[in-house]
Amino acid sequence: MTTEQRSAAGGRVPFRAPEPRVPDTVSDVLADACRAAVTGVNRAWDTWDRAGLVQTVRTGADGTPTYRIDEIVEDAIAATAAAHGVNLLSEELGLVDRGSGVTMVVDPLDGSANAAAGVPLSCFSGALYVDGELAEGLICWLEQGHCVAARAGEPVPYRTSGATALTGAAVSMLRPKRHAGGDSTDAWLRVAGRAERVRILSSSCLESLLVAEGSIDAFADPGSRTHRLVDLAAAALIVPAAGGAVVDVHGSPLELDTDLTRRWSGVVAATPQLAEELVEAIASSPR
Amino acid sequence: MTTEQRSAAGGRVPFRAPEPRVPDTVSDVLADACRAAVTGVNRAWDTWDRAGLVQTVRTGADGTPTYRIDEIVEDAIAATAAAHGVNLLSEELGLVDRGSGVTMVVDPLDGSANAAAGVPLSCFSGALYVDGELAEGLICWLEQGHCVAARAGEPVPYRTSGATALTGAAVSMLRPKRHAGGDSTDAWLRVAGRAERVRILSSSCLESLLVAEGSIDAFADPGSRTHRLVDLAAAALIVPAAGGAVVDVHGSPLELDTDLTRRWSGVVAATPQLAEELVEAIASSPR
Repeated sequence: MTTEQRSAAGGRVPFRAPEPRVPDTVSDVLADACRAAVTGVNRAWDTWDRAGLVQTVRTGADGTPTYRIDEIVEDAIAATAAAHGVNLLSEELGLVDRGSGVTMVVDPLDGSANAAAGVPLSCFSGALYVDGELAEGLICWLEQGHCVAARAGEPVPYRTSGATALTGAAVSMLRPKRHAGGDSTDAWLRVAGRAERVRILSSSCLESLLVAEGSIDAFADPGSRTHRLVDLAAAALIVPAAGGAVVDVHGSPLELDTDLTRRWSGVVAATPQLAEELVEAIASSPR
Repeated sequence: MTTEQRSAAGGRVPFRAPEPRVPDTVSDVLADACRAAVTGVNRAWDTWDRAGLVQTVRTGADGTPTYRIDEIVEDAIAATAAAHGVNLLSEELGLVDRGSGVTMVVDPLDGSANAAAGVPLSCFSGALYVDGELAEGLICWLEQGHCVAARAGEPVPYRTSGATALTGAAVSMLRPKRHAGGDSTDAWLRVAGRAERVRILSSSCLESLLVAEGSIDAFADPGSRTHRLVDLAAAALIVPAAGGAVVDVHGSPLELDTDLTRRWSGVVAATPQLAEELVEAIASSPR
């Protein structure tokens, strides 16, 4: 909806985020950042109506508009990163380099359009890189307080569905759209035509969490190069730890890069086989 | 996903439904039915893994397969209807006629594929008809305990967004699909091409709740005649009470009918004008 239409309603988001259930295994810095995200989003919902939450306050480091709700949540997280003395790479601020060996890569409020409107599907997503290597990931579904976490090389208590075939799978996707490189509608329809269930939840991190826990079989950007590192970094550790795979449709490696205008078309799947089949379905020439 | 793929994972749904926050204005019979739904879905999640939850146990009164999770939740609600001595019209059981002047029309577990898989987007939806007239409606988002309710002729504390135009709107839809009357893909793409935001949440009652509260502007079945009375009855009171409209793409009146194989293509919108524009966009000839 347009801001103009929205302000006619002028309503407040009717729920708050509970205390997150952060697993004991999570490092203090990531756990504190997650709790800061919860405090921040609740403060935003308490202070502003929907029209105020989606006001654009500036352009973020990723090149997209920063909503007021994004800024409030990110500010809370940035204070946590400062207190812990770690570098921060975040969607709106970009890189805050403190010369630490630890870099926290966060999407402060994934699904911020959901969170601003009152669609209860938004996430905090954070990853720790130590000396450039992905060491830890945490995704928290904010409206529920439900978290999944992983540390490099350690086992996790959740598993993907194990699905290996697109036919019959439950797949979430970004919406079909025109984009700089073309139009993802044909690819979207090819995937939807073979999947048993299709959803658009508008929160890539929540959709990755659902793949990790086996609730859906895959999530994909059907080629629109919409994902930034912050959307996929935590999932890139969490989903493989559960038996799945995170790849890019166009074959780009998902690597630590402080340029947040760099984009990927992420495919997050229950198994490497399913990820490969999705890449093939998305990348094949339009019929 | 296929049942075969799912059983390979064999996991349990990792959350439970909290006590629902039923408004004080709701009648005892609807409030008890809602609490029974919560008890039922938690029992189902405690007892069965995902593969067990989606096993088809029979064909329901609406002509679609009854999953085990549907049966468990509906059984809990049916006991409540019996205790209150009201007639029950429910998705799987059909009509249980006790000769009462009150008929409770329920979708015990809307979004049952979500609930069975662990996608936390499912609802209880109930409506009371007194002497054939729609008198009360309640929708509860089960995984959050959040409820909206309305009584005929009484004011409600929530409002739709007030959006009047499809261009720039936030619209949820059923997925595009082939169906008995044709294929809804062209209509789906026409709507998606004009909307600012597009979602597929796979729970019609949750999507109606979000329209009623102003979190999204509209929800539509783009012409696939998928909706049954149980999907729309509560919304047909709740959404107009908040300033919106519930109509059928093909112009059929939404009326109490005990034949659950009867279908509608529901359009639930923030205003009558937006509902009309959506009907026109969906019904126009394919380009």
